[in-house]
Amino acid sequence: MQFLSDNTAAVHPRVWEALRAADAPDAPYDGDALSRRLDEAFGALFGREVAVLWTATGTAANCLALGPMVPPHGAVLCHAQAHVENDEGGAPGFFLHGAKLMLVDAADAKLTVEALAARLDVIAPGVHWVQPHAITITQASELGCVYRPAELAALSALARARGLYLHMDGARFANAAAFLGADAATACGDVDALSFGCIKNGGMGAEAIVFFDTSLAEVARRRRKQAGQLASKGRFMAAQLLAMVEGDLWLANGRAANAAAAEIAGSAGDRLLHPVEANELFMRLDAGERESLRSRGFGFYDWGADAARFVTAWDTRQEDATALARALAAL
Amino acid sequence: MQFLSDNTAAVHPRVWEALRAADAPDAPYDGDALSRRLDEAFGALFGREVAVLWTATGTAANCLALGPMVPPHGAVLCHAQAHVENDEGGAPGFFLHGAKLMLVDAADAKLTVEALAARLDVIAPGVHWVQPHAITITQASELGCVYRPAELAALSALARARGLYLHMDGARFANAAAFLGADAATACGDVDALSFGCIKNGGMGAEAIVFFDTSLAEVARRRRKQAGQLASKGRFMAAQLLAMVEGDLWLANGRAANAAAAEIAGSAGDRLLHPVEANELFMRLDAGERESLRSRGFGFYDWGADAARFVTAWDTRQEDATALARALAAL
Amino acid sequence: MQFLSDNTAAVHPRVWEALRAADAPDAPYDGDALSRRLDEAFGALFGREVAVLWTATGTAANCLALGPMVPPHGAVLCHAQAHVENDEGGAPGFFLHGAKLMLVDAADAKLTVEALAARLDVIAPGVHWVQPHAITITQASELGCVYRPAELAALSALARARGLYLHMDGARFANAAAFLGADAATACGDVDALSFGCIKNGGMGAEAIVFFDTSLAEVARRRRKQAGQLASKGRFMAAQLLAMVEGDLWLANGRAANAAAAEIAGSAGDRLLHPVEANELFMRLDAGERESLRSRGFGFYDWGADAARFVTAWDTRQEDATALARALAAL
Amino acid sequence: MQFLSDNTAAVHPRVWEALRAADAPDAPYDGDALSRRLDEAFGALFGREVAVLWTATGTAANCLALGPMVPPHGAVLCHAQAHVENDEGGAPGFFLHGAKLMLVDAADAKLTVEALAARLDVIAPGVHWVQPHAITITQASELGCVYRPAELAALSALARARGLYLHMDGARFANAAAFLGADAATACGDVDALSFGCIKNGGMGAEAIVFFDTSLAEVARRRRKQAGQLASKGRFMAAQLLAMVEGDLWLANGRAANAAAAEIAGSAGDRLLHPVEANELFMRLDAGERESLRSRGFGFYDWGADAARFVTAWDTRQEDATALARALAAL
Repeated sequence: MQFLSDNTAAVHPRVWEALRAADAPDAPYDGDALSRRLDEAFGALFGREVAVLWTATGTAANCLALGPMVPPHGAVLCHAQAHVENDEGGAPGFFLHGAKLMLVDAADAKLTVEALAARLDVIAPGVHWVQPHAITITQASELGCVYRPAELAALSALARARGLYLHMDGARFANAAAFLGADAATACGDVDALSFGCIKNGGMGAEAIVFFDTSLAEVARRRRKQAGQLASKGRFMAAQLLAMVEGDLWLANGRAANAAAAEIAGSAGDRLLHPVEANELFMRLDAGERESLRSRGFGFYDWGADAARFVTAWDTRQEDATALARALAAL
Repeated sequence: MQFLSDNTAAVHPRVWEALRAADAPDAPYDGDALSRRLDEAFGALFGREVAVLWTATGTAANCLALGPMVPPHGAVLCHAQAHVENDEGGAPGFFLHGAKLMLVDAADAKLTVEALAARLDVIAPGVHWVQPHAITITQASELGCVYRPAELAALSALARARGLYLHMDGARFANAAAFLGADAATACGDVDALSFGCIKNGGMGAEAIVFFDTSLAEVARRRRKQAGQLASKGRFMAAQLLAMVEGDLWLANGRAANAAAAEIAGSAGDRLLHPVEANELFMRLDAGERESLRSRGFGFYDWGADAARFVTAWDTRQEDATALARALAAL
Repeated sequence: MQFLSDNTAAVHPRVWEALRAADAPDAPYDGDALSRRLDEAFGALFGREVAVLWTATGTAANCLALGPMVPPHGAVLCHAQAHVENDEGGAPGFFLHGAKLMLVDAADAKLTVEALAARLDVIAPGVHWVQPHAITITQASELGCVYRPAELAALSALARARGLYLHMDGARFANAAAFLGADAATACGDVDALSFGCIKNGGMGAEAIVFFDTSLAEVARRRRKQAGQLASKGRFMAAQLLAMVEGDLWLANGRAANAAAAEIAGSAGDRLLHPVEANELFMRLDAGERESLRSRGFGFYDWGADAARFVTAWDTRQEDATALARALAAL
Repeated sequence: MQFLSDNTAAVHPRVWEALRAADAPDAPYDGDALSRRLDEAFGALFGREVAVLWTATGTAANCLALGPMVPPHGAVLCHAQAHVENDEGGAPGFFLHGAKLMLVDAADAKLTVEALAARLDVIAPGVHWVQPHAITITQASELGCVYRPAELAALSALARARGLYLHMDGARFANAAAFLGADAATACGDVDALSFGCIKNGGMGAEAIVFFDTSLAEVARRRRKQAGQLASKGRFMAAQLLAMVEGDLWLANGRAANAAAAEIAGSAGDRLLHPVEANELFMRLDAGERESLRSRGFGFYDWGADAARFVTAWDTRQEDATALARALAAL
């Protein structure tokens, strides 16, 4: 009973179908018919014009989205627990040619206007001090929490007022939208680019960068090639993404994962370290309790010395979630 | 009847089988059982210890292979028509942090010891002059020609004598091995790392870096993550590669593509600009001849003003090759 | 009466003499007789074999010293208030090709073994997490405090135990040595490289990187050229440094600056935010008090909303220091 | 009798005076009165609005000038014998974050419209192929030849037509202007930025970037700091440049060096490999002839196996030039 990561989840049958259907000769790279359909498909999803690029990983999606926003002498404001800061092996430093990540702290790994403004206000304008060019937020956050539309609106207003680009890491965007019960546009807010997660949500190996500021896409396309991310059989990348968004598969899968997490959360009580708003649960569990759960077949990661992280996915089995909920209740 | 690129070729049925078989939960990234089998599988193929990393593209494979060999203040010697120089959107500059490509010319896009030595001999040692740290060669070359074992031996002797690493871009390595009638080790020679091509040869979206100097792999693994190339469902990357090399699929596919090319070459006569030793044909064709061929349904790229490039693949249909051969003969 | 920065201080007469004496034709770059004397002169100062490079600025000295220590996928541990983090316009990101600065906090801008160990202990070894390769400390610290020999010994022991290089930013190294009443070797401890400050201490435009691990110098020399730091008339760079260290000018100037700071500190009482151990004073002063001082002709920088920074230099006039001391006492 | 390099030349007395006069406390970095006078002084020289930055070396001037013109995925067109390509230790790769130098050949190290157009015309627009963003030319060229105003006009017209920035490496700009008998604006033509040489022409350690496209200066200022080129006592940098251009010292020195070269050239006859239009002479001299000259006290560099390079400077003594001329005539 695996709750290690949604990265271990299976590929959804409809993605498999789309992959098989894509196996006809077509133009290489992103010149194929499927890749050329992406802008329209995502445009329909978000209700506005977009420019969409596939990438092989979420790390590449985040960094290639930020690339056209931030010069090598600039910086990106992010949460101290952001994936770009903590879990991407230094990718932003590489993709942004030495630009800086400036860390800001706030509850639940969600940036706030107050915390950002406080950080921005102490940056003097001279050349001695690195200037921020963008903010990146994660929806749902690295601690499984979801920005509300009003929070998103406040953040984008701040970004506009300060002349900063706004990027959203949406590795678990579907989970956030499912939680909000909102359409994609609402769950996203007014950002300049979104890394739209597909792999954790039933895909095999494709993520999408959705540029709402389409003027950024030209540079991103060149950087994608330069970064070795331009797959030569791009039709298989596009196929996965289209399977997700030409229909409601992305959202249905997000809902399924959230439902499993919610069931488990119901038994976790005050063990929970953060609200469970997506498909991740962080809870206090001492070493003995963790050992006890593992001995009964539950897989999960330790989260520091006294806690653990559980992640559900679109294919988490109902009986596994129920079993975990019961085991937690019985601790 | 498509001869544009082997990048448009289909995914081989045995690769599809392997992909489907990989769709069971396993550890994320490269911690899965399939990824962990790569060193052994490629070690068996090459008859020596190797360290193997999958990547999403050939560009990434080349650049991540060169990464641990070349510091940011160094250089790589390559042929003036090398893929790294001409077709990778500047990826080596990015992955090697500004290190230089030093261009060397020689016939058929194959580097020679003489040409390399002449270039090396004019590089003074002082800090004003960028020093080479590696040589990269392409097997089969960008003009469809194959290094013979004696040529490889001479190149590796030169590299050792000069203290340079030697890398092989094997995007069409299978075609080279098939032409030589040689095993993988012989077709490769004594290089420090090989970019082993899979995608053009029946794969979907995985290439392998095979480090023969296994001390280079640790840095490459970190750089792979930093470059956003560490797929989270790596089992699907490894599955493709294992399908190719745990058996002779790689070689059989290479042979099939070569056979189609050879049939076409038999009708091209003195139109050929380079020996046809792999699956690419470059031939003199004036604008009228190209138009004539296209009007009969043959797809291919112009190669300058008076020539064209044709590429066969593992799935080139016999009847298509024959039709092209006849059409050429009839021009 | 200027207490803004030691960067505004005059060039010492003995430096002027050395510059004039250097104005005879000699080999360009660092091939001149003066540049070739540096290793010996600094070797005598530190009592061990060293390799010395001049640079045009302290920022370049720090970054070129760290360059050979840290690969592009690595990190440097530094204090959250370190100059490399806060005041170099992002230079480490540029010179280290995207490597990361990892921030650690501790009192008086001085790193401690405890704080470093706590930070190091939470870095997992996998490729997802950037690994530190070096520690940099500043002697005297950015808050005007000095590492004691025992503290330096503990830090170098930690660095050795963890396999990390240790670098010292010695922009105000002379002030630290003067405070300690120690020779250069003692004030430096067992670091791998020292950025030896000259400009703030009576020089015009040259700093020195002193490599105690001389194996690092070869790469640093190439990086210096690549970074546009290899002055073509290097004899004028070397001349400044030799004027400082072939004799006790460096130390005498450090003592003079410290003495002025000490006199002022004596009147600052509990306004002081940090011990005054070098030539910088940080003290609580409200807006009215700052205005009062400025109206009497004292120049200094605000330090946040309720404090100010005063810096003395080798050429701070006795009467100016006394005047400031009296003015503070009278507030 | 030294003809090795103008880098060995002395500092001009008027530069010394200016340096001494600058030794009064002023704001650090480039906030001092002298640095703030640069825009006006160079604006007067060129008869138009400019933004001027000092740097410590010509390599830094070239690379920081190109920095705001060329993104990391772009390229600079330069002559195959350009200093940026051959003699800067790979600095453009570093400062431009991996952007490419695209080499073009033409006589006398002077780019021509024809050669540039031919190179540009084969660059396809797709993401696979690096796109040029700037052209750099050297006035006087690396082979001692000078672009005429009509040639400059043609090059700038080409650059505008192709949407490329145009940069001029003017390490020996004074020599070019002296040869042309032209004012600075004419010798420069319509470029976007000029690296204005001072060090080889009587300076100590400062060069100027003159931005005619002043919109580029803001980024260059930040990059200068990030590159460790922002001297803290910048008044000494500005002083050297003002001594050169507030008056005709720059031009007088260029004329003096040219005159010495012209005298020598008069005796070199058909030994000359290139026209002598500035202060460099390249001439055929076999090993015996070189040995003979050296035995009589002449210092110079070999230029390949059968030639030598001689460089004059502002302070070349009349009798030394005459002696060399006679020695050549007598060979």
